Amino acid sequence: MTKEIEFWFDFSSPYAYLASERIEELATRHGRSVVWRPFLLGIAFRAEGTKPLTHYDAKGRYSTHDFARSARLWNIPFSLPDPFPAAAQDASRLFIWLDRHRPQQAVPFLHAIFRAYFVGNRFIGDRAVVLQVAGETGIDMDQAARAIADQGIKDRLRELTREAVGDKGVFGAPTMIVDGELFWGADRIDMLDQWMTRGGW
Amino acid sequence: MTKEIEFWFDFSSPYAYLASERIEELATRHGRSVVWRPFLLGIAFRAEGTKPLTHYDAKGRYSTHDFARSARLWNIPFSLPDPFPAAAQDASRLFIWLDRHRPQQAVPFLHAIFRAYFVGNRFIGDRAVVLQVAGETGIDMDQAARAIADQGIKDRLRELTREAVGDKGVFGAPTMIVDGELFWGADRIDMLDQWMTRGGW
Repeated sequence: MTKEIEFWFDFSSPYAYLASERIEELATRHGRSVVWRPFLLGIAFRAEGTKPLTHYDAKGRYSTHDFARSARLWNIPFSLPDPFPAAAQDASRLFIWLDRHRPQQAVPFLHAIFRAYFVGNRFIGDRAVVLQVAGETGIDMDQAARAIADQGIKDRLRELTREAVGDKGVFGAPTMIVDGELFWGADRIDMLDQWMTRGGW
Repeated sequence: MTKEIEFWFDFSSPYAYLASERIEELATRHGRSVVWRPFLLGIAFRAEGTKPLTHYDAKGRYSTHDFARSARLWNIPFSLPDPFPAAAQDASRLFIWLDRHRPQQAVPFLHAIFRAYFVGNRFIGDRAVVLQVAGETGIDMDQAARAIADQGIKDRLRELTREAVGDKGVFGAPTMIVDGELFWGADRIDMLDQWMTRGGW
């Protein structure tokens, strides 16, 4: 069995977007597969008593500056969308449906959504935008609309969120988990890299 | 004029301790001097609406795990003290006094305090412990007691805190500033290293 990197994310997280652009290269280098796990970051914030980074004052200004600085360091196109953040559950639901029923289309859709928001400034909080991006990725838009409205898919997103927040101890995005070890933040990819190389320390 | 790295810290911060063990080597390598700047982290937390890491639930468990994991990665002795955190204003005041009046003793005292708390589990929230550590570092304990009680020194710590929180946009510790650019967190030392090497990006 191929070992995995669990990648817990919400489409509204800039750092999750940045990490999503780097994690596959890292996984390939270590002979691992990426298991993409969307969850509702807002639920994690509520459980912890925290909030989106940009809703803090000084921390918000720092983060806004650091999103772009980190993106330049890693050569990833980025601009902070406006409005920000977005409630991204529609995109997450569609990702879950694709992952189950059209696995070939799931990861391309994931990257397309992240880039639509964080490069193209398209507001993924609107269902119409999510469906447009799906269409551009070659996904049947009517099928996508049904998937987003599917109760079983909605339940699955709640279930993943419970798993993240309740069982795994996830409180922010991205959270990467290898062999039970959590790494929180796009800026921990190098540490994760070392962890896999050395088999922990 | 030698260029500087401003190192903003509170003696109660585990990540500030870890970074304090690495920053001088980094500065030397880049021909810079470290300017040590204590401030009252609790004031920054209050201004931001945040709190000590270990006071969060999942984030607290993660951080507790990560303090030790980061310390092992960087080969720095560490154990999380109990009780934690400590109100470290006495140690900060004495550091400020030493920095002004006994500059040779200031940095050795700084490292001694950090290590007393984060290696030796000695509660630096107690003035008696601060004075003991001062004594062990060769500082006159009566002089140290007067320094801690000095109104001008107390005022200076408040002033530094206002400078950090009000002017510089500091919201956590450690915060390292080079040429006006902020880097928050012990885990950003490698990024800071690259920033100085490349002169920004």
